[in-house]
Amino acid sequence: MSAGAGEPRILNPGDVIGVLGGGQLGRMLAQAAARLGLQVHVFTPETDAPASAVAANTAVAPYEDLDAVRAFAAGCDVVTYEFENVPMETALAAGEAALLRPGAKALEVSQDRLVEKRFLNAVGAGTVAFCAVDGPQDMTDAAFAVLAGGAILKTRRFGYDGKGQTRLAPGDDAAEAFKAIGEQPAIVEAVAAFTRELSIIAARSLDGEIAVYPLIENTHADGILRESVAPADVRDETIAEARRIAEAILGALDYVGVLAVELFELEDGALVVNEFAPRVHNTGHWTMDACACSQFEQHARAIAGWPLGAPDAHSAARMINLIGQDAERWSAILGEPGAALHLYGKREVRAGRKMGHVNRLSRLKR
Amino acid sequence: MSAGAGEPRILNPGDVIGVLGGGQLGRMLAQAAARLGLQVHVFTPETDAPASAVAANTAVAPYEDLDAVRAFAAGCDVVTYEFENVPMETALAAGEAALLRPGAKALEVSQDRLVEKRFLNAVGAGTVAFCAVDGPQDMTDAAFAVLAGGAILKTRRFGYDGKGQTRLAPGDDAAEAFKAIGEQPAIVEAVAAFTRELSIIAARSLDGEIAVYPLIENTHADGILRESVAPADVRDETIAEARRIAEAILGALDYVGVLAVELFELEDGALVVNEFAPRVHNTGHWTMDACACSQFEQHARAIAGWPLGAPDAHSAARMINLIGQDAERWSAILGEPGAALHLYGKREVRAGRKMGHVNRLSRLKR
Repeated sequence: MSAGAGEPRILNPGDVIGVLGGGQLGRMLAQAAARLGLQVHVFTPETDAPASAVAANTAVAPYEDLDAVRAFAAGCDVVTYEFENVPMETALAAGEAALLRPGAKALEVSQDRLVEKRFLNAVGAGTVAFCAVDGPQDMTDAAFAVLAGGAILKTRRFGYDGKGQTRLAPGDDAAEAFKAIGEQPAIVEAVAAFTRELSIIAARSLDGEIAVYPLIENTHADGILRESVAPADVRDETIAEARRIAEAILGALDYVGVLAVELFELEDGALVVNEFAPRVHNTGHWTMDACACSQFEQHARAIAGWPLGAPDAHSAARMINLIGQDAERWSAILGEPGAALHLYGKREVRAGRKMGHVNRLSRLKR
Repeated sequence: MSAGAGEPRILNPGDVIGVLGGGQLGRMLAQAAARLGLQVHVFTPETDAPASAVAANTAVAPYEDLDAVRAFAAGCDVVTYEFENVPMETALAAGEAALLRPGAKALEVSQDRLVEKRFLNAVGAGTVAFCAVDGPQDMTDAAFAVLAGGAILKTRRFGYDGKGQTRLAPGDDAAEAFKAIGEQPAIVEAVAAFTRELSIIAARSLDGEIAVYPLIENTHADGILRESVAPADVRDETIAEARRIAEAILGALDYVGVLAVELFELEDGALVVNEFAPRVHNTGHWTMDACACSQFEQHARAIAGWPLGAPDAHSAARMINLIGQDAERWSAILGEPGAALHLYGKREVRAGRKMGHVNRLSRLKR
């Protein structure tokens, strides 16, 4: 196993991909990489993590145990991550002993909502209006002035699936709202007057080649993705604009791997970016059954330094997340023609927990 | 984990499938089963077997170590096999501690070419002409009389990929030919005057439901499969006849799981059976990328007691085996749009060794 941060090494079949994180994204990534003849090792603080059952090896240790991280990475050729909130120190420690792809910059930007929004605006991608809020004192009339139509207070760091955020209206008690999110550095964002939620999954290879999957329309409830439909029924201009945004982000980060961009489509058809994720993404799960090369295989190819796969869909797909007790419908889903069931091997059913998903395929319209 | 040979138990997600054999078939089966939330344990005499890297657990022991087999099976809910030459005693020992699917009868019939051909004829499936040969004394003029056009002497048991067989012509030295195949009980088969090699992959569920994939056209060289094309370009009558044959075999064996039938298409369009395999099959690998439910998922569903998946293809496919040094072309294959690469994680390249395969997808003609 070769260390060598920074060098553009190309993996061979049999080489080892290390994944920081052992959840369902790591699990599906491990399966796709194994299909290509790569070995997958998983680093996770959890025993019995979903990815462990399908990986060649698992190291169980806290992310903060940097010696364990370095030892893990020393057994890998390239290390990647399945979630953007992996501590920066952990990623950097892994990068000392193996190639880290995507790089630390993508993590740095995506871990902080304020840094992320400023980055997006700088690369020419629109966002909703926002203000930095370091304490109740920053939640002034000026902050609210940009937020006609309501606002959301969000922690700058470590939010996901609707956690760490609270709705605000002019006149609300600023101190109370700030307390509700744990009194951490935050931003206030305007509520987007969007008509639809879209996303786009794109990949960039080591030599700068970019592949973009068809645009996706998403439905969330309670802050959790419920359903994705692809290809989304949108105008060609919308597709072109989404591609432009994805390509701008990928290029500015000198990115290697798969990246997801969550978009709001506004009433006038314009797109603004909600956020991006430097990883494979729940809204890309439909690619597993509707494309010759899934987002997981695409990520494995990119971080291995290999050519990207064609991102074309051979079928249309509707992906439905199986959340909590939804997964109890597994038997009925198995009986549906054209439905591909994916279960993540999680033993404990909990409300709001992503237990699996189903891809329902149909013929492409064009 | 429940023992209970014979009872029609239906598995739940999280239950354990045991696979006897750790090669590429076991590997791809393990991956498909894991996608459905099943745990997969592998039993193999090899350390570092292809299936081990993607399975939750591996037991390494000789097949003849029946105590190890029983201990392995005791940790499984259902046990299956990835090759038909697993020793009968091994399969029966596994069946004492877990459900065995497909059952022992399918193994018993398919392990012996003579028993198999007699079985096929009994269920109404044609074969080439054949004679039992227990020694050179049986290789009489009478034996050759049925074999106009040449013959092949084959061991009754443990032949695969062209091993354990030799061509014969009238006048050949019978004793020498018999020595060439190791002086084992054998059969002489007529060389089929076939125009094409076809195969059909079918599955039968616990409650007798049958699903049949589109017919496949195959090309062999040196006794090893090189290429499969599906759906095969054949007449509707040929499809119907192949289905009839597959259904007859499945029914007669009270079969549970995926079964492959290798067929010869004769000049007049008639089909005769070459042999059947009570398992997932190399000529079914195209289903991994061209069907919503692959042969591997189908086998997992069947042996779990679950409903079968729809066997329809959404794309046409050409599967090419990567044999020996063919696998060195992996990088070029990755660069082909619409080509799905599968590598089995075998470290050592050997002549004739199946290292992987590639599925090239195209639009269905109808």
